[in-house]
Amino acid sequence: MAKDIFERIKENRGPLGQHAKGVHGYFTFPKLEGEIGNKMLFRGKECLVWSVNNYLGLANAPEVRKVDADASKEWGLAYPMGSRMMTGQTSEHEALEAELSDFMKKEDTILLNFGYQGMLSAIDCLVDRKDVIVYDSESHACIIDGVRLHAGKRFVFQHNDMESFEKQMDRATKLVADTEGGIMVITEGVFGMAGDQGELKKLIEYRKNGKYDFRLFVDDAHGFGTLGETGMGTGEHQGCHDGIDIYFGTFAKSMASIGAFISATEDIIEYLRYNMRSQVFAKSLPMPLVVGARKRLEMLRTQPEHKENLWKIATALQTGLKENNFNIGRTNTAVTPVFLSGTLAEATNVTFDLRENYNIFCSIVVYPVVPKDVIMLRLIPTASHTLEDVSYTIETFKKIQEGLSAGKYKADTLKQVETD
Amino acid sequence: MAKDIFERIKENRGPLGQHAKGVHGYFTFPKLEGEIGNKMLFRGKECLVWSVNNYLGLANAPEVRKVDADASKEWGLAYPMGSRMMTGQTSEHEALEAELSDFMKKEDTILLNFGYQGMLSAIDCLVDRKDVIVYDSESHACIIDGVRLHAGKRFVFQHNDMESFEKQMDRATKLVADTEGGIMVITEGVFGMAGDQGELKKLIEYRKNGKYDFRLFVDDAHGFGTLGETGMGTGEHQGCHDGIDIYFGTFAKSMASIGAFISATEDIIEYLRYNMRSQVFAKSLPMPLVVGARKRLEMLRTQPEHKENLWKIATALQTGLKENNFNIGRTNTAVTPVFLSGTLAEATNVTFDLRENYNIFCSIVVYPVVPKDVIMLRLIPTASHTLEDVSYTIETFKKIQEGLSAGKYKADTLKQVETD
Repeated sequence: MAKDIFERIKENRGPLGQHAKGVHGYFTFPKLEGEIGNKMLFRGKECLVWSVNNYLGLANAPEVRKVDADASKEWGLAYPMGSRMMTGQTSEHEALEAELSDFMKKEDTILLNFGYQGMLSAIDCLVDRKDVIVYDSESHACIIDGVRLHAGKRFVFQHNDMESFEKQMDRATKLVADTEGGIMVITEGVFGMAGDQGELKKLIEYRKNGKYDFRLFVDDAHGFGTLGETGMGTGEHQGCHDGIDIYFGTFAKSMASIGAFISATEDIIEYLRYNMRSQVFAKSLPMPLVVGARKRLEMLRTQPEHKENLWKIATALQTGLKENNFNIGRTNTAVTPVFLSGTLAEATNVTFDLRENYNIFCSIVVYPVVPKDVIMLRLIPTASHTLEDVSYTIETFKKIQEGLSAGKYKADTLKQVETD
Repeated sequence: MAKDIFERIKENRGPLGQHAKGVHGYFTFPKLEGEIGNKMLFRGKECLVWSVNNYLGLANAPEVRKVDADASKEWGLAYPMGSRMMTGQTSEHEALEAELSDFMKKEDTILLNFGYQGMLSAIDCLVDRKDVIVYDSESHACIIDGVRLHAGKRFVFQHNDMESFEKQMDRATKLVADTEGGIMVITEGVFGMAGDQGELKKLIEYRKNGKYDFRLFVDDAHGFGTLGETGMGTGEHQGCHDGIDIYFGTFAKSMASIGAFISATEDIIEYLRYNMRSQVFAKSLPMPLVVGARKRLEMLRTQPEHKENLWKIATALQTGLKENNFNIGRTNTAVTPVFLSGTLAEATNVTFDLRENYNIFCSIVVYPVVPKDVIMLRLIPTASHTLEDVSYTIETFKKIQEGLSAGKYKADTLKQVETD
C-alpha cells in the first residue's frame, strides 16, 4: 500500500525534529546576539559563550571588520556572478588561491564556494567506480555525503583504530588488485566533537613503509589555523604535512567566514577546477568574502599572537578541568568536551541552569552522539576568551557536578524549561 | 592490477579538463571586470555582456549596493557563526523566511546557506528508501546529485515528454503499491540551457484528475523573479503555483547574491530545518547576505519595472532573432539560446570573433550538451540591457551567420586564438 511522502514526514519527524516543539529557540536554534566574542547576548542577557568556532578571535578584529566593510562597499555582494568557469573568475580569487598554496606548501589550491558541498563534491570528483574509499567512522557529514555519492566500494574503519584500518585496507588492496582501481583514504585532522586528532602520521607511515598504497584526503576544518607551528594544521603539528595528498580547509572556523579550499598538486587542482560539479555548476564565492579571506589569512600568517592566545585559554581550560577531576576524554586539540553522567532530562536541566543562573552558554551533545546516560558539554575556547572566563567556568562546572551528584537536576526537582 | 588514483587523473582530465591548457582564461574561467551590467571589461576591453544571470539588474542597483555596504559595515561578514541549529540563528534570517513565505504564498520557508547543497540535501532529506523519485532528464546537476544520494529507486523521464513521464509513473506507482513508499516528482520551472519551462501544469493535472499520486518538487532557479505576474515564478506563470508542493528558489540569479530557499507547508519546512544535513552541519548564511536578500526581495516585490525592463529586452531580442531567421529553439522564458550549424572549431572561432572584433561576450555551449555540428550561443537578457544592445547584437549575429555560411570560421581561415 503506497504512502504519501508528506504523511510519512508528518508522522516521523526525525531524531531531533521529534523534540522541535519543546526546544525550538532555546536548545535548538538559539539566537546569540551582539558582537561575536566571549560575551554575547542570549535572550537579552549577557552570557559567557563557549559555542562559537571563532578560534583565533578574528571575527570582530578591527582590521577584519574594516576589510569586510570596505570590500563590500567597493564590490557589493553580487559580484562576480556565475560559476568560476563561466563568468565568476577574478584576479582576487586567483590571488587568494596563490596565497593559500604558498602558505600550505602545496603546488596549487582551488577555492570552494562553500565547504560542505566542496568536500562532498571533491570526493565525488576524485574517485571513479573502480576506486575504493576507506574512511574513518566518525567523519563529518559532508565526507559521509561525498562517500555516499561514490559508485564503487567504500569500507569504513573504526574511528582512529589502526587494527580496523589494516583490516579494511587489506580488503581494499585485494579488491583493487583485480579492478585497476586505487584507494582513497579519507579522514579528518581534528574530529570536531571529541577533539581528538586523526592518526595522520600513522596512516602515512603505512605508505612510507610500503605496506599499503593509497592517496590521503584530509578534512582539516578544525586544524587549519589552530594547529602546527605556523598554523598549517594537523599535518604540520604531527610532522607529516607532506604526506597529505589532498588538504581541505574551511573558512568557517579559524577564518570566521564562509568558503573553503583544497590544496594539492597542480594536476589534481586543475582536474578539480574542471570537474567538480558543485563548483562548475554553482556560483563563485562573492568578492568581499574573497578579499576578507585574504586579510584573515594574512593575519593568521603574520600575527602568531592569535594562536598563542587561543592556546593560552585552551590549555588553562583543559588543565583546570583535569585538575578538578573532570573527564575531558581524548582531546588533544582546542576542542574541549566535558563528559558528565546523567539522563537526557538532567542534561537539559544542566544546560538550562548554566544559561539561566550562571550565564554560561555552551552546547550540549546527547544520545545518540554519545551513549545514553552520558552528557557531553562541548566547549570551544577562543583567543577572545580570558583567564577569568576560564576560572569562572571551572568553578561553575564544579557546582554543576555537585548538583548532578546530589540529584538536583532530576526532572522533577527543577522548574521545567519554558521557551517562547 | 591496481592503479594509483593520481596517475589515472593525470591521464584522464575529463570532458572539459582535456582542453584546459588551450582555453583557460579565455573560453573557460574568463574574467569579467567592472560593475555588473550590460557592458563589462574582458581582457581590458569593454564588451557587451550576455552571460550574467542578473535578470532584474539588481546587482548594482544603488539601493542594493547601499544595503550591502551598510549591512557589511554593521555586521561584518563573520556573523553569525555555526549552523542555524547550533548558534547561527538570527531574527533577520527568520524575517527573510517570513517575507519569502508571504511572497510565495506558502505556509513556511527555510533559508539555505547555498543553493547547490541546499537542493541536493533537501532531496536526500525528503525521500526514504521506499520512496521512488521520478525526475526530468535535463535536471540541473544539483538535482542529479540529490537523486544520486537516494537509496531507493529513481526513474528518469525524457525531458518534458509526457508519454515518457506516464511510462515512468506507471512503473513507480506499481512499485510503491507494494512497498509503502511514495513518489516524488522533481523537475525545473525553467531549464537554464534551452530556456524552456517545465510542464508543471500538465504534471499537476495528472494528480488533479486522479491518475497519479505524488508530491511535486520544483527547482525554479531561473523562474523566480522573472516569471509570473508578481514574479513568483513558473508556477504563477502557468497558473498552477498551488500545485507545487515544494518550491526551490535561488538568490544567485534574479536576486544577484548567494543563498537560496525552499517554501512549502509548515510541516515540511520544520522537518527540513531539523533534518537537512547540509544545513544542520554547515554554517548559516552570513548576516549581510540575509539583509541584502531582504532588500532585493522588497525591490522584486514593489518595483515591477525591473521585470518589465527585462521582458522589454528579452522580447525585443527574441523577436528580432526570429524575424531574422535565427533558430532560438523552444525557449519560452528570458533565456535565449541561438542555434547555429558548425563544428567545434568554428564555434571557437565564432566566439573569438564576437569577443575580439565585435566586443560581444556571450557563452557558448558545444557537444556533448548539444549535438555535434550544433553551436549554441546562450544569451541572458537583463533589465540593464538597452534596445540598442539588442539591435547591435542582432546585426552582428547576421554577420556571424553569413561568415559561417561562407566558411569564414573554418579552423584554417582564422588566426588561432591566443590566450595568455
